[in-house]
Amino acid sequence: VAKINSNYQKLAAGYLFPEIGRRVAKFASENPNAKVIRLGIGDVVLPLPAPILKAFHDGVDEMGVVSSFKGYGPEQGYAFLREAIAEHFKSQGANVDSDEVFVSDGSKCDTGNIQEIFALDSTIAVTDPVYPVYVDTNVMAGRTGAADENGRYGKLVYMPATADNNFDPSLPTGHVDLIYLCSPNNPTGAVMSREALAKWVAYAKQEGAVILFDSAYEAFITEPGLVKSIYEIPGAREVSIEFRSFSKTAGFTGVRCAYTVVPK
Amino acid sequence: VAKINSNYQKLAAGYLFPEIGRRVAKFASENPNAKVIRLGIGDVVLPLPAPILKAFHDGVDEMGVVSSFKGYGPEQGYAFLREAIAEHFKSQGANVDSDEVFVSDGSKCDTGNIQEIFALDSTIAVTDPVYPVYVDTNVMAGRTGAADENGRYGKLVYMPATADNNFDPSLPTGHVDLIYLCSPNNPTGAVMSREALAKWVAYAKQEGAVILFDSAYEAFITEPGLVKSIYEIPGAREVSIEFRSFSKTAGFTGVRCAYTVVPK
Repeated sequence: VAKINSNYQKLAAGYLFPEIGRRVAKFASENPNAKVIRLGIGDVVLPLPAPILKAFHDGVDEMGVVSSFKGYGPEQGYAFLREAIAEHFKSQGANVDSDEVFVSDGSKCDTGNIQEIFALDSTIAVTDPVYPVYVDTNVMAGRTGAADENGRYGKLVYMPATADNNFDPSLPTGHVDLIYLCSPNNPTGAVMSREALAKWVAYAKQEGAVILFDSAYEAFITEPGLVKSIYEIPGAREVSIEFRSFSKTAGFTGVRCAYTVVPK
Repeated sequence: VAKINSNYQKLAAGYLFPEIGRRVAKFASENPNAKVIRLGIGDVVLPLPAPILKAFHDGVDEMGVVSSFKGYGPEQGYAFLREAIAEHFKSQGANVDSDEVFVSDGSKCDTGNIQEIFALDSTIAVTDPVYPVYVDTNVMAGRTGAADENGRYGKLVYMPATADNNFDPSLPTGHVDLIYLCSPNNPTGAVMSREALAKWVAYAKQEGAVILFDSAYEAFITEPGLVKSIYEIPGAREVSIEFRSFSKTAGFTGVRCAYTVVPK
């Protein structure tokens, strides 16, 4: 008899956001007059701005004429976009080539999918609290043990990032293979300092670990001198994959366009 | 030291289409005057028709106004689309409910991703020849052994579908858990008969197996009486998941919209 992937049964309460959706839908149907303020998925509430609308309309028009019609695109994304992304990194002091950029349909998908290229017995470190996609995708793939009564999974290394340590997580005491870092952080909003990132890069080099650096919210950093890309840190190209998104600026959330950098 | 997923190293010659792309690019750069007829990925060459262009423009306009703007959509896809899909199945004599439909960005992704919900030690049967996505995704996940000198993988059950058996593959002699069937078939073009499908449904019920039925090309069936959906076969709802796509009609390829049916 065909069997399901039993790792899914380890998921503590199902994936967080559908579970919130189910509870909100149940409450709303039982209380049709209640006004519900939704604090689950951060959705957008304002329409797309005019320049984005124009670009979309122009793109659709391109698809209607033989001379500019496009079929399947190149696997890594169109060159014009990858080159613009690489220039954007360079303007931030980060050395990224256009052929190191992989365009995708979102950072949620990218940060979930990236784990598949690593060994199933990899040791994973995550901050606590953490964006649940990093954890749940590894649970489903079988890289963790069962959840305990607090919803924490066996084999996962949790690094607390709370007000007590100024949201600056400590290095693991032992070896880990993969380290998820998110700056600006989802959910705390904290931005990692240059010194903290340099400490993580040094640890990754020493341990032969890979840092999975999620900077989807980098556009919100306005304070001069703060690090936007991990590739601003010397040596980071040897040990880091960076994830970025167009979703978090200009009301693009839900439209789905993001990119991942994998240095040669 | 972080290790890669060593299953990728089993891939016989890399995924077929990127490999064709690499060889074509190499030949074209060495022979800049040669006219190359590309027989790899079946890409589209004509622009989108007017009704689709209009629907895209209308959709973009919706995103520019507060009253009609949409953020994240529902996980399974918008109800209006799922309901239209369910009606389309019913018009073909197949019983599908709208809450059994999952809208996606393509049947390639769906047929590749579906295997993750099944156990890693599942036994897989595929026709030979076969659409390479079914095989390669299971290789990468670790459900096969190494490739032999003919590029066939250990543990996979191959079911020949050639002119010798009129492209009607025989049932496996032993037990399998998952069976990939494709009708109309990619690459042979053969359509499975009602009798052949009934035979497979009976086998799946007997063995507790699941049929993964790819009907992405169903719109090309014009001969009356041929089966378009496996759910036209009595009992198929208990043992089958069906994959369909908007890509193969109306020049939609590359635009990416498809759907999967998982009966309750």
